[in-house]
Amino acid sequence: MDGQYLPIQEAKLSVLDYGFLHSDATYDVAHVWKGAFFRLGDHLERFFCGMAELHMSIPYSKAQVAEILHNCVALSGFESAYVEFICTRGTSPDFSRDPRDAENRFIAFAIPFGSVANEEQMERGLHLAVTDVLRIPPSSVDPTVKNYHWLDMVKALYAAYERGADTAVLLDTNGNVSEGPGFNMFAIKDGVVSTPDLSVLLGITRQTIFDLCAEMGIQCHAQDIAVEDLKSADEAFVTSTAGGVMPVTTIDGQSVGSGEVGLLSKRMMALYWQLHEDDRYRSVISYPGSTEQ
Amino acid sequence: MDGQYLPIQEAKLSVLDYGFLHSDATYDVAHVWKGAFFRLGDHLERFFCGMAELHMSIPYSKAQVAEILHNCVALSGFESAYVEFICTRGTSPDFSRDPRDAENRFIAFAIPFGSVANEEQMERGLHLAVTDVLRIPPSSVDPTVKNYHWLDMVKALYAAYERGADTAVLLDTNGNVSEGPGFNMFAIKDGVVSTPDLSVLLGITRQTIFDLCAEMGIQCHAQDIAVEDLKSADEAFVTSTAGGVMPVTTIDGQSVGSGEVGLLSKRMMALYWQLHEDDRYRSVISYPGSTEQ
Repeated sequence: MDGQYLPIQEAKLSVLDYGFLHSDATYDVAHVWKGAFFRLGDHLERFFCGMAELHMSIPYSKAQVAEILHNCVALSGFESAYVEFICTRGTSPDFSRDPRDAENRFIAFAIPFGSVANEEQMERGLHLAVTDVLRIPPSSVDPTVKNYHWLDMVKALYAAYERGADTAVLLDTNGNVSEGPGFNMFAIKDGVVSTPDLSVLLGITRQTIFDLCAEMGIQCHAQDIAVEDLKSADEAFVTSTAGGVMPVTTIDGQSVGSGEVGLLSKRMMALYWQLHEDDRYRSVISYPGSTEQ
Repeated sequence: MDGQYLPIQEAKLSVLDYGFLHSDATYDVAHVWKGAFFRLGDHLERFFCGMAELHMSIPYSKAQVAEILHNCVALSGFESAYVEFICTRGTSPDFSRDPRDAENRFIAFAIPFGSVANEEQMERGLHLAVTDVLRIPPSSVDPTVKNYHWLDMVKALYAAYERGADTAVLLDTNGNVSEGPGFNMFAIKDGVVSTPDLSVLLGITRQTIFDLCAEMGIQCHAQDIAVEDLKSADEAFVTSTAGGVMPVTTIDGQSVGSGEVGLLSKRMMALYWQLHEDDRYRSVISYPGSTEQ
């Protein structure tokens, strides 16, 4: 934060930063699993694209950001971590309202690895509610620029809780399935995997599902998914850096397929974690005092 | 901030506050002019409605918040100020992603009075661009709950700057005029005043225009405004707590009416500031060391 490494309790942002006052910020989250980042390069790539689209810049290259993130994790000592890096519009001299006057700010932090689904939910599958909240459309805010505009997500979450569900999925402007609070949605029907292609973040875990399907010779399509099609799927799961591949077993109180965690979903979950051993995707952390990488 | 009065440079928020990480917050801004708040009760009313809708609460009544705001201004010594008060979702123990686990946080600050239009722009009238950016629709985020979801506004601002304009107005989902970065939009045609009724914040300054028109016997309607109707208006102005009533003299490079600040707009501007002397709307600040109110 502002060029210093600090304990997380001391990592604080000016209340005048437009990253707070206008949610004028982009960010990314990578995770560390058993001492190594997973697909860090992809997260960095997306983060730098987001900054460019928002007319923001930081005085660090991708390699330098990677080094800062490594340092955050090494200093925290976490073997598994959730590592968030943020560029905010920053503060302006003289309280100027012109975003071009602001000095952009870079922040990064490592906290313990977190998951959308807790242990019990991973075991029994998530209970999902399809809400009538519309995800903020791309004509307003580009969903491929990872952003903090979550009031629609929070509204959907409260609606889901009221209906006894664990989490929610939102709809796009055409009434099709969009995404949920922090995750992409997948359905499996007759062995074919599908996920929405518009109005959603292009998740790195989502991309990993495409990659795994390609390796396994399974068809995987990005396409519109009608609510009825999601509900009548054989299996469903959600993906997020926060938790990986997480099964869904009921939607609006009705069982998905057999109501048990599906076989293909289980296979995806296993392969997803197996991929974490793959050197193509790993960047190993050097912790202080450790004798080996 | 967290129960303490601090210099603004020390007013800092945890980077883990969901008011930042999910823009999960509502706020309001009241202004102080010549030592008195203007319509503070209306701002407090809107703020408390917003918190209720977002399932948030603070341990202060409206009267207590008013007292805190008075203290912020009195301690700052500003005769004219921009006073922002915020409720964020807050931080959660153990990094929980469930908004119900978070402890809501109240923040308030006073900074010097600011304006959407600078002195030169007030004099010559604002140059406005109508952009094709759609304001985040009410089906996603309720615009009457004042919020920090501004990436659409910022995108529109950059588009306006590229076209040589001072600021931008966004469109609603039907392609009609919505609002701009921090202001409501008004058009005057044949002596009738109109302003959009959907997809917009119900501004307190906007309400003041309704009140002034009622007193003057001028028709004022909240209704859809097509882009063509805005461009062919006799006069146009924008309203905001940050600046009051601000004239618009060109839209997309074309003159509005005569291209001069309109007569009715000038009258509105004068009456708006005159209303600041009205005891119905004033709450006078007691500054430390002052011998009279």
